[in-house]
Amino acid sequence: MDYPSGVRRSAPAHQKGISKYTYSNRGMSLEEDINMTNQFYRETNKAIIHKKPTPVQIVNVHYPKRSAAVITEGYFQSKSTTDYNGVYRGKYIDFEAKETKNKTLFPLANIHDHQFRHMEAISKHGGICFGIIRFSSYNETYFIDSEILLLYWNKMLNGGRKSIPYEVFKSDGYLLPFNYQVRVHYLKIVDQLYF
Amino acid sequence: MDYPSGVRRSAPAHQKGISKYTYSNRGMSLEEDINMTNQFYRETNKAIIHKKPTPVQIVNVHYPKRSAAVITEGYFQSKSTTDYNGVYRGKYIDFEAKETKNKTLFPLANIHDHQFRHMEAISKHGGICFGIIRFSSYNETYFIDSEILLLYWNKMLNGGRKSIPYEVFKSDGYLLPFNYQVRVHYLKIVDQLYF
Repeated sequence: MDYPSGVRRSAPAHQKGISKYTYSNRGMSLEEDINMTNQFYRETNKAIIHKKPTPVQIVNVHYPKRSAAVITEGYFQSKSTTDYNGVYRGKYIDFEAKETKNKTLFPLANIHDHQFRHMEAISKHGGICFGIIRFSSYNETYFIDSEILLLYWNKMLNGGRKSIPYEVFKSDGYLLPFNYQVRVHYLKIVDQLYF
Repeated sequence: MDYPSGVRRSAPAHQKGISKYTYSNRGMSLEEDINMTNQFYRETNKAIIHKKPTPVQIVNVHYPKRSAAVITEGYFQSKSTTDYNGVYRGKYIDFEAKETKNKTLFPLANIHDHQFRHMEAISKHGGICFGIIRFSSYNETYFIDSEILLLYWNKMLNGGRKSIPYEVFKSDGYLLPFNYQVRVHYLKIVDQLYF
């Protein structure tokens, strides 16, 4: 997908809904790891969890003869929810996943205000809600309960810091060890915390 | 949104992610009615249920200077799940909504095989799963449990009829009376059946 510069630019893979396999020394992207994990969960009948499609406002569509409709004008819309949801052991599961290259903190700006509000609402309604945050510099992926995320978000709204220190993930989060088959085995932590 | 014929054609509103208010004698579309119902549920803190965005495969994006990115080539992807899901009273809720103009039956082709398979999986995992089917000729909207839908789908897979008779909705479904504020009050039936 490398186009000569200036010829045409392509959307970042996370906006594309297209699989993006990055065979770098870091392994795949967090999104790809989670998609594979969810697929494993579905195939082994453990849980039914999907990524929501990226919301697109479609303005114009061309219908060529004898081939598929082509969207010729569309715009990215902001998300009103988190990216992933589904059902596990009868319970509603809802989470957001983010990667950061930052080594000392997770910037709260990575998650939109309406996504935090959504998380707050999900928790109030008895859903299981959390974040999966990868510090790509360390290649560490943490499970962090929405309570912690919302605590720091509320602090920020009241004039506090705009980030969560890395140390908080080490102390209050749960490191998700990489496993080839179940790359981000977050349901293990869900089992510990909610059942 | 009426363009002179032959100039350009626009996608059907249900593919657009754009609100479509049809002030016909039939009222709004089922999708619009359900979106308003879900909004009411969210605002009154009853449940958090959203429509999933239409999945789009984005192939090419143009980034004009000083304005929003424009998707210039994209394709509709088939849905692997139902359209609506969320949380109610701690439980996972999942449903599909369809309108038919047919007066005697609901054609099963309106719901894709992988959507039926998704419904089957959701039920197995303890989620609450159903259909909301509107017979627009009668302006009647029915709540129908996924068990009934899956019963007929399985019959079809084994060589049976490719539709569900209208009478089945009258006998085994639940008519959802129109209410101005809560247009398709499906949670009332969920309360009766699952709690």
